[in-house]
Amino acid sequence: MNYTLDPIYAVLEKTQLDGVAFVPGANFRRIFNCDFHLMERPLVIIVPRQGDPVAIVPNLEMASFDQIQFGGKIFDWRDEGGYDAAFKSAAAALPQLNDSVEIGLEAQRMRVFEQMALSAVFPVATFVNAHLAISSIRLIKTEDEISKLRKAIQISENALEATLGEVRVGQTEKEIESILLRQLFAHGADGLAFDPIVAAADNSAQPHASARIDYQVKKGDSLLIDFGASWRGYNADITRTFFIEEVSDFDRAFYNTVLNANARGKQVSKPGLKTHDVDDAVQVVLENSQFAEFARHKTGHGLGLDVHEAPQIMRGDDQILEPGMVFTVEPGLYRSGECGVRIEDDVVVTKDGIECLTNFPRELRIVG
Amino acid sequence: MNYTLDPIYAVLEKTQLDGVAFVPGANFRRIFNCDFHLMERPLVIIVPRQGDPVAIVPNLEMASFDQIQFGGKIFDWRDEGGYDAAFKSAAAALPQLNDSVEIGLEAQRMRVFEQMALSAVFPVATFVNAHLAISSIRLIKTEDEISKLRKAIQISENALEATLGEVRVGQTEKEIESILLRQLFAHGADGLAFDPIVAAADNSAQPHASARIDYQVKKGDSLLIDFGASWRGYNADITRTFFIEEVSDFDRAFYNTVLNANARGKQVSKPGLKTHDVDDAVQVVLENSQFAEFARHKTGHGLGLDVHEAPQIMRGDDQILEPGMVFTVEPGLYRSGECGVRIEDDVVVTKDGIECLTNFPRELRIVG
Repeated sequence: MNYTLDPIYAVLEKTQLDGVAFVPGANFRRIFNCDFHLMERPLVIIVPRQGDPVAIVPNLEMASFDQIQFGGKIFDWRDEGGYDAAFKSAAAALPQLNDSVEIGLEAQRMRVFEQMALSAVFPVATFVNAHLAISSIRLIKTEDEISKLRKAIQISENALEATLGEVRVGQTEKEIESILLRQLFAHGADGLAFDPIVAAADNSAQPHASARIDYQVKKGDSLLIDFGASWRGYNADITRTFFIEEVSDFDRAFYNTVLNANARGKQVSKPGLKTHDVDDAVQVVLENSQFAEFARHKTGHGLGLDVHEAPQIMRGDDQILEPGMVFTVEPGLYRSGECGVRIEDDVVVTKDGIECLTNFPRELRIVG
Repeated sequence: MNYTLDPIYAVLEKTQLDGVAFVPGANFRRIFNCDFHLMERPLVIIVPRQGDPVAIVPNLEMASFDQIQFGGKIFDWRDEGGYDAAFKSAAAALPQLNDSVEIGLEAQRMRVFEQMALSAVFPVATFVNAHLAISSIRLIKTEDEISKLRKAIQISENALEATLGEVRVGQTEKEIESILLRQLFAHGADGLAFDPIVAAADNSAQPHASARIDYQVKKGDSLLIDFGASWRGYNADITRTFFIEEVSDFDRAFYNTVLNANARGKQVSKPGLKTHDVDDAVQVVLENSQFAEFARHKTGHGLGLDVHEAPQIMRGDDQILEPGMVFTVEPGLYRSGECGVRIEDDVVVTKDGIECLTNFPRELRIVG
């Protein structure tokens, strides 16, 4: 075996679930150090609290799966016969789950048809959402993971600097996005953490905007760029907001309010603090400003093999920060129909505070 | 309203389902001509057979969602309060589904936590997998869709030709992948249809291999490249297999067997034929060769806004080909531990046969 399921057994012990099932994705990758695409062919790992684990694997993937040296029974299935028989055999090999037990699922990752296949063969089991519990195996990053995040961030920041050198008045948002994509791969990205957001003026006031093919940036526009490279599976997630050729005093004040909130989030974060308190400190900066009405979302989210993972930096959340957790600090303000500003850094919790992994300057910058 | 739900009502009529629920993704995009990332925040559209549709939307996305001009009730929810109340309100607005009705889900797309939220508020409804039925709205491509696919394919083929010009003995698979990624975006890709497969020698014998950072390609190696650009949401999916500097007679025969199977698949395909018959014709070429034991998978899959969609080109499948369907013809042979060859084209069904959308030459090519 090239892996250990100990972190999963710890989850089972802590939650007292009778088993968990998970599919390719970030948790799978953290455990097995390899990944498979989620497609129309189900690949499911079932780990019971007692007894050996079981894998249901498309025959097509067996050569790749064999490299894991999986230490349990494997039931493979072929396109022409479908996967029902493999699920039945897997259930027969797990009599301890053929009872009124609780099986935890990666419910934010696993799709409904995979659960339907499980439900069909474990008809008396109860399936519960164990996404947070299973994903907790990735909450504390190792040094190796942090160094991969640093590399993903470095590639992203170099690509952003190179992109800004090419931005000009009159380009469309889509053209600027194309420059960014080209620069990301020219600087060594393995892939995209997510489809970038390149949005100017009123479009930047939509937190998850798409680049327009028909809007040309003009003097005085905000230009919000939210993007990240992935490198060896690890994802950067960075936002900076610029202004094209000039900025009004009003927009400068708007920008600096977000900048203050960003700084405040990094200043207060430290081990022992609740994620609620980080978000609260950030929101208070926004709420005490003249722009309170334009706040729209929480401070941030965890970052690693997934772009959005635990911990959520959000009021009401009582996760306590610990060294090795990585998350984003990304306050934003959005004046609908006019202008949006978001400034996003990636930070890792240290022994006595945080280290900011992103280094791209945050001071208001005029480009174009 | 900037959209029509008529295709969904046709699905409801045909299936006699009482309602369907779907989430951002290819079907969503086809209907609303826009998309949202699937993240930890559920966004769900519920369309009952009778009465107005309902949307559950993260407040954060409302500015983007408003552009749809949704013609039904919208229940938005904020991070701090969670989404349970929005689902409850949505259910209250859909009394016709608060009964022992059948609700169809996009089960290969929707995640378990979204279904759990639906189950909680429609406790007596039965949820069924309606993925194929809902996705059937995308089965026949319009001229506009085909022209976008052509563009995605053209970008991909230009990028592949440029990549081959840079391939040299001694490069790692990962280095060649980096060249390909850079060239895709330099040639105008909006994004990647999927993470490319760049695999040489024994690694090419794994149908879904990952590029190795520690294997340098050498004389006589196969080099399999399976990749595609996306453009305006539409995906290319192309595979070509090359040989580095030289090829053995045995590998040449192996290659030409796959080439014959690929040609056969395109030759037989026409309206009125079952997808079973296309796959069967292709598999017979492989099975009647000296390499029969190395076949591993079906002939292909539909292609469009999703990289893997209907129709599946597979024995046992009785979908009948119709003009406007787009699918891949991608036979492969895989000698475990030695060499894999796959040759993949994208085709559109015409009035009396198919048109091959991919033009990259298929004859055995020596590179490096």
